[in-house]
Amino acid sequence: MRQVTIKALARELRLSVSTISKALRDSHEISDATKRRVLELAARLNYSPNPYASSLRGRKSRNIAIVIPEVADSFFSLAINGITSVTKEKGYHSIICLTHEDYKDEQDILKAFHNGRVDGVLISVSGTTESGAHIRGLMDQGVPVVLFDRVLPDVPAPKVVTDDAASARNATQLLLDHGCRRIAFLGLSPQLSISADRLAGYEAALRENHYQPKAKDILSCGAGQQQNLLAIKKLLRQKDRPDGIVAAVEKLAPLVYQACNELSLRIPEDVKLICFSSLEIAGILQPSLSTVTQPAFEMGAKAAGLLMKLMAGKRAEMEVVVSAELTERVSSG
Amino acid sequence: MRQVTIKALARELRLSVSTISKALRDSHEISDATKRRVLELAARLNYSPNPYASSLRGRKSRNIAIVIPEVADSFFSLAINGITSVTKEKGYHSIICLTHEDYKDEQDILKAFHNGRVDGVLISVSGTTESGAHIRGLMDQGVPVVLFDRVLPDVPAPKVVTDDAASARNATQLLLDHGCRRIAFLGLSPQLSISADRLAGYEAALRENHYQPKAKDILSCGAGQQQNLLAIKKLLRQKDRPDGIVAAVEKLAPLVYQACNELSLRIPEDVKLICFSSLEIAGILQPSLSTVTQPAFEMGAKAAGLLMKLMAGKRAEMEVVVSAELTERVSSG
Repeated sequence: MRQVTIKALARELRLSVSTISKALRDSHEISDATKRRVLELAARLNYSPNPYASSLRGRKSRNIAIVIPEVADSFFSLAINGITSVTKEKGYHSIICLTHEDYKDEQDILKAFHNGRVDGVLISVSGTTESGAHIRGLMDQGVPVVLFDRVLPDVPAPKVVTDDAASARNATQLLLDHGCRRIAFLGLSPQLSISADRLAGYEAALRENHYQPKAKDILSCGAGQQQNLLAIKKLLRQKDRPDGIVAAVEKLAPLVYQACNELSLRIPEDVKLICFSSLEIAGILQPSLSTVTQPAFEMGAKAAGLLMKLMAGKRAEMEVVVSAELTERVSSG
Repeated sequence: MRQVTIKALARELRLSVSTISKALRDSHEISDATKRRVLELAARLNYSPNPYASSLRGRKSRNIAIVIPEVADSFFSLAINGITSVTKEKGYHSIICLTHEDYKDEQDILKAFHNGRVDGVLISVSGTTESGAHIRGLMDQGVPVVLFDRVLPDVPAPKVVTDDAASARNATQLLLDHGCRRIAFLGLSPQLSISADRLAGYEAALRENHYQPKAKDILSCGAGQQQNLLAIKKLLRQKDRPDGIVAAVEKLAPLVYQACNELSLRIPEDVKLICFSSLEIAGILQPSLSTVTQPAFEMGAKAAGLLMKLMAGKRAEMEVVVSAELTERVSSG
């Protein structure tokens, strides 16, 4: 008897080989109706998977990749721990690849995964990433992807994010409640989801309090910390300088401390500050730093859980939004 | 004419195939005399490398692995940047693998590299690593390895380290100079090179000043920060508590701040503190933290440079010792 192949099933049902293959794997990408048709025909023709092909398909690397901009940031180091708490239990090695906020590097890294070196990818995109084509390209190779924290709207993969706009709005409102009348926003590239959403929250809070957001109070900080410091000092050296600052990422807070110190401005008397940060030592800074803290470990664990589902051919939620926690300390008050 | 193989050269010279292969690659592991014998015979027999085998041998992954205990530590995040500053320029991807201070994890990670997944490995061993057999096993597979910071004496690979004993001795002397009479030492596992060397420096300084190191003033801190905090509080709750602390790793400093805070002890009035740390924000802690800072970026870059040499079959220095910098701030003074 001639061996019934996936190709034969595809021909018979006028479906693609990939659809048949996914249906047999019970992938969520295939409708239940189609799955039923495929399974019925497979049963009728006495189809059994080619053991050699099956072994090839089953030859997993047991590696998952964590692609992130940097590790010198408490959010990412905690998120990594959350991820590995899940992947390790499932018997996967995690390899971490850093993009150093470089789009080209990020593209190269994902390109290297086309050959099946990893079974799945968790990614938080760089600050210079312009499109999700490289991520979609990897997904087209059948590699499951989950985005976390820094996401892209044009990538049809599950995303784990914080309620960034609401958190920034609350942070800005806190400074307004403490008497600030001119609040600056320190972000990263405006094309970065987290930066854009946090900026939107900041602007919303200002407008709700009848202030007009001003372009000169909104800084886009880049990868160079020295340049960022100069920009912050320039901002604070103006005659009508801001009396409050909302900083969108952890690495900007120490620069505000340094700038204030060099300009003899006191925190919080002259400039109030609140920062998105997972820094565990925020409480022992001088003065202690008010923070918006994302549940980094939980976000990592949740993203890894979604990836494990995808890798098992199961359906995963397309968006998980978690809340950040606002902690008032001395710097904002 | 029959093809002259490496095997034939080996038979003729009564050397191993691996020795011939290394000699033809100009590896530093082979003496000049042997290389000359091999090359002379190869020329005489008109040996030319099998293009297929050569291509297989030449098929590099273009990946190097950085195997470290954690990333939530400024030393490692800066060292990674130093490493990638070198590897990127040479066209290598760096993948980071975390052991989470677990010997078993470290063994598993290196085992996974036996199949040629990476072209070279930079490693700083975990706090629970008991022997270097797993590293030697990887080296036996022909994978070049360089150790940095946390090294093992029984691994015959190049090492990049800090003058740990001298640095700890200077740090301890600083506290003695500021009037401390009973100084405690907070380390990690005593089997860890950096912890043992820093402890030795601390003990040397005490002895030079006619103090006898006491076992109860020397803590071995583990991976659990909550447990470490309890141990530090117990240390500081004694009637004749220490008036100075030398902390051997960055993550222990915040615990001392927290313990002092909870016990209403003032830093530096009641307890003086100096810590090995690459924390860039040491200066804005409350009070600012006196530090022994290793040149983390440079150590990473140096280690990567040595690995590149090994991967090119060249000779590399077996030990590079760099100096740490002592910075006095408020906590020690």
